[in-house]
Amino acid sequence: MTHTLSGHLLEHLDAHYRGMPPVAAMQVSIAGYDGERLRLHAPLSHNVNDKGCAFGGSLSSLMTLAAWGLVTLHVQSAGMEADVFVADSAVRYLAPLFEDLQAEAHAAPEADWHAFLATLAERGKARTELVARVTLPDGRDAATFRARFVAFRKG
Amino acid sequence: MTHTLSGHLLEHLDAHYRGMPPVAAMQVSIAGYDGERLRLHAPLSHNVNDKGCAFGGSLSSLMTLAAWGLVTLHVQSAGMEADVFVADSAVRYLAPLFEDLQAEAHAAPEADWHAFLATLAERGKARTELVARVTLPDGRDAATFRARFVAFRKG
Repeated sequence: MTHTLSGHLLEHLDAHYRGMPPVAAMQVSIAGYDGERLRLHAPLSHNVNDKGCAFGGSLSSLMTLAAWGLVTLHVQSAGMEADVFVADSAVRYLAPLFEDLQAEAHAAPEADWHAFLATLAERGKARTELVARVTLPDGRDAATFRARFVAFRKG
Repeated sequence: MTHTLSGHLLEHLDAHYRGMPPVAAMQVSIAGYDGERLRLHAPLSHNVNDKGCAFGGSLSSLMTLAAWGLVTLHVQSAGMEADVFVADSAVRYLAPLFEDLQAEAHAAPEADWHAFLATLAERGKARTELVARVTLPDGRDAATFRARFVAFRKG
């Protein structure tokens, strides 16, 4: 994938996020993408709970969006379009976060992007598993996430 | 618990929800409470994804908020105050929802409010498990949720 294609896909993903009212309300932005890991940012001020730290729902949503976006980027990088849905997820909330939210998603250790994309191309439907985390300023985990996604090819 | 006390606690909980920016953005409101089950409502328009159905993050957040609110109501009904945190959660997304979101939370089958409140009163900290669901207009599940919460008594 060239930088130009990558940049175009990230702009498209960013517009996709902003087009969803609950995601726009969280003020989610793309913080980085290296082909394997997608990082998202959201300001604490728009995602704060009653205790002054990050709302659990926002932590979960940001990790879901990072993983969903990473699946979408891989599908589009392979020249396909698909509707991507989260099928199930498990979240552990480990420590309160009193700073802006930074989530990072990548493929689960046993997941295989090539197999996922080949199945999507051949059968029009494929599943894969991703992990994500939100870190504290000192590098420890504020929350961890594991989820399965299913993609349905369009067109 | 008298109706007056219940009404006061529900007003307080409603203000609590509205005081959290990401929850206010979801336009969450209390739809019902019978002492055992807390129901929350959120309009689809503020919680819609790129496919025109309910955003997974909003489904997860609404179920988390319903369960969190139910723990809070039980703590306050027992005359205590506590900080209530979600410790972990598992969500299954079963069917797309193209209507307003209605979440209902109640205690997990093996959970015991009396034991939870007695532990909180004696030790200042207690855990309990809850389940929640968002239903489709035809009564089937759009999403199901199971989570553990921990309460730390204040004062």
